[in-house]
Amino acid sequence: MEVTKLLAQFVVDSRYADIPEKVRHEATRSVLNWLGCAVGASRHEGIDIALAALAPFAGPPQASVLGRAERLDIMHAALLNGISSHMFDFDDTHLKTVIHPSGPVASALLALAEHRPLSGADFLHAFILGVEVECRIGNAVYPSHYDVGWHITGTAGVFGAAAAVGRILGLNVQQMTWALGIAATQSAGLREMFGTMCKPFHPGRAAQNGMTAAFLAAKNFTSSERGIEAPRGFANVLATARNYDEITGKLGQTWEVALNTYKPFACGIVIHPIIDGCVQLRNEYKLKAGDIEGIALRVHPLVLELTGKKTPQVGLEGKFSVFHSAAVAIIHGEGGEDVYSDACVRDPQVTALRDRVSAVVDKSVHEDAAHIAIKLKDGRTLDKHVEHAIGSLARPMSDADLEAKFRKFAKGILSAAETDALVKLCWSIGTLKDAGALARAAVPADAVVARA
Amino acid sequence: MEVTKLLAQFVVDSRYADIPEKVRHEATRSVLNWLGCAVGASRHEGIDIALAALAPFAGPPQASVLGRAERLDIMHAALLNGISSHMFDFDDTHLKTVIHPSGPVASALLALAEHRPLSGADFLHAFILGVEVECRIGNAVYPSHYDVGWHITGTAGVFGAAAAVGRILGLNVQQMTWALGIAATQSAGLREMFGTMCKPFHPGRAAQNGMTAAFLAAKNFTSSERGIEAPRGFANVLATARNYDEITGKLGQTWEVALNTYKPFACGIVIHPIIDGCVQLRNEYKLKAGDIEGIALRVHPLVLELTGKKTPQVGLEGKFSVFHSAAVAIIHGEGGEDVYSDACVRDPQVTALRDRVSAVVDKSVHEDAAHIAIKLKDGRTLDKHVEHAIGSLARPMSDADLEAKFRKFAKGILSAAETDALVKLCWSIGTLKDAGALARAAVPADAVVARA
Repeated sequence: MEVTKLLAQFVVDSRYADIPEKVRHEATRSVLNWLGCAVGASRHEGIDIALAALAPFAGPPQASVLGRAERLDIMHAALLNGISSHMFDFDDTHLKTVIHPSGPVASALLALAEHRPLSGADFLHAFILGVEVECRIGNAVYPSHYDVGWHITGTAGVFGAAAAVGRILGLNVQQMTWALGIAATQSAGLREMFGTMCKPFHPGRAAQNGMTAAFLAAKNFTSSERGIEAPRGFANVLATARNYDEITGKLGQTWEVALNTYKPFACGIVIHPIIDGCVQLRNEYKLKAGDIEGIALRVHPLVLELTGKKTPQVGLEGKFSVFHSAAVAIIHGEGGEDVYSDACVRDPQVTALRDRVSAVVDKSVHEDAAHIAIKLKDGRTLDKHVEHAIGSLARPMSDADLEAKFRKFAKGILSAAETDALVKLCWSIGTLKDAGALARAAVPADAVVARA
Repeated sequence: MEVTKLLAQFVVDSRYADIPEKVRHEATRSVLNWLGCAVGASRHEGIDIALAALAPFAGPPQASVLGRAERLDIMHAALLNGISSHMFDFDDTHLKTVIHPSGPVASALLALAEHRPLSGADFLHAFILGVEVECRIGNAVYPSHYDVGWHITGTAGVFGAAAAVGRILGLNVQQMTWALGIAATQSAGLREMFGTMCKPFHPGRAAQNGMTAAFLAAKNFTSSERGIEAPRGFANVLATARNYDEITGKLGQTWEVALNTYKPFACGIVIHPIIDGCVQLRNEYKLKAGDIEGIALRVHPLVLELTGKKTPQVGLEGKFSVFHSAAVAIIHGEGGEDVYSDACVRDPQVTALRDRVSAVVDKSVHEDAAHIAIKLKDGRTLDKHVEHAIGSLARPMSDADLEAKFRKFAKGILSAAETDALVKLCWSIGTLKDAGALARAAVPADAVVARA
């Protein structure tokens, strides 16, 4: 079966008019969420470092680094914006594959939009196609590919960026097939890097490499025509099992972006039901840390495997601690970036409650759920079973929730008026004449002044 | 065992004075051969395409594209020169791993040398270290890694480029460890791409990505400290078996560059003994195609697996045809790039003789050997057993052979005087004050004029 060529044909032939409004709206939500994450992390040390290291080699100032004064060539802008969008691990999740789909695709597309003007509809269409390509390829090799040790957001993301940019460049089927092949041979990113700056580097590099693939293919740089399915192609070399029907079945009838979810909390998705339940109990009973004798959690096995850190020492480690997360959910009533600062994980009030949190694994609890029992000093026990965490497909964040998350990210980087204007632009992206306006509006006026 | 850190420590601590003169001379031969290949392919269509596609995004004109007028930022120059050095598949071979070691390392280093002046001795030292790192990592995972489907020149080469550039940037052990980690998480390149422009893209991208890793690490961009040996690190994710002693054993006592070999013929290494033997018989007996009734070959099984194409239609296919190669060895007495042109594979005199070449597999014939029996129309049969092909470790190309190969590549690109000057510079690289002079001397004066 010609998997790569079929997928290329689909991307080339797709018509925006055939994509349901509901799917377009989910894509809009994805772009809004991605942009907020990128702006929010734009002043992170990792971005400063990457800029200091690579800007001396960057090309003409074609595109914005979101939230900042620097302008770089579109390849470097895609890299930097891809890094910042995943820096807080707060971006979107395609739960079927744990791909963070927007980073690789939107980072490439928005940089391109500043260099080669395109309408918001074309942007959204290409974005939907890019997400479709990366998630379908992810579906085909998940979970064996992830289990081997690949960070699937990087390895599948490069295909999504290639497809999206290739679509805008107007590649024909032959060229799009090559673009996917050039993407395949750059597919990279190890899970070993989790907890280091290399993790957010992966979607950034995927955006940049996918874009490179599309530009090379546009000039007829040749590649395999079976980059995905050949015996020595992506799916055979980087996975131990694969199902090509996930790539070619129902193309154009189902849309992966419709399955996208957004994190309300700035930590691993497996902790979300616990934070959700703790916040609910806190608010319902007006709980204070001092009232609590102990918090007992019953959780899915992955929770302790991925986030079992008992005594985190720095903020980043707090994101991998279900104990810290439960404590701050009670004390602060939230799970935002603030509660994962170095100061917060060392706060005596937090550590005192954290030490009273215990967790047991229960295989009957599914990934999306958790059971929480809070024993109070007055003898009562408060129970909460969360069946589906807030932010999951069953209980999605509302448009208002997403907008509030966005505003929180923008605070301190964009002015209130700039934030209002950018939010408005995001919601109307499908009708914009010039999608690049999004990127320019994500740069604060003081940065523009500093640049001049 | 801390494999990555040990290797990083070795690269940081190595002293040029401790490297034997013989090893340095082999490194010099490697650089000369690499430079010739890069200059020779500098006008290839694939280079034109890559430049047309990517130059609009390139940074300041910091480094030369060898053999051409364009100057690009060092990252792009490393990419382009890495591509051209492997375009003809005529570069060097570390036979233990089939890595082409110079491409990723020298392409990165020479670009760097034009931007950040360094002595020839420092250049050669860093080159030797880079080759050491990539080949040791290759040794540790070969053959399982290659068998899975990875193009090892790309996947191991990125480590070599990172180490070599990192050494010049003066990274400390922590930073060098990170550089190898950032390299690990970019390791990529599929064997599926053989026969397309993506094959030479691999060493180019390895050079560029390894250089990126070193520059990021120099600014303290963090990565895993166990990028090679962690359960989800390079050696476990990209190979099914591994031996870390190949990386850490006898560090500083043995040198992989001393095992480097150079191709006298512009085709797959497995055909070399056949061309060698045919040329010997031709010259010994002054053979003409018309004298020959048939040529019968007894060869190692890989010869027909890799180069069994009976009736090649284009030049590139000729490189994968032992039949074509035997015919042109008799008719033209050589195996250079000229005999793998489209015109040559379609030449009626060549195809007539090619049709009279037969080959059988003999498992007792080793990879480096071949048996040739030429039946003449006058009834005689001429036999030749080649035990080790010219160019192998047992029968290495002499310095004069390498120089002649270089001159052939430079013809039509550099003037005779320019070629003389460049050859002289190459042989004296270890004593140059400014290694970047090599790159500038590899650009013809007419290109410099065209640029101005």
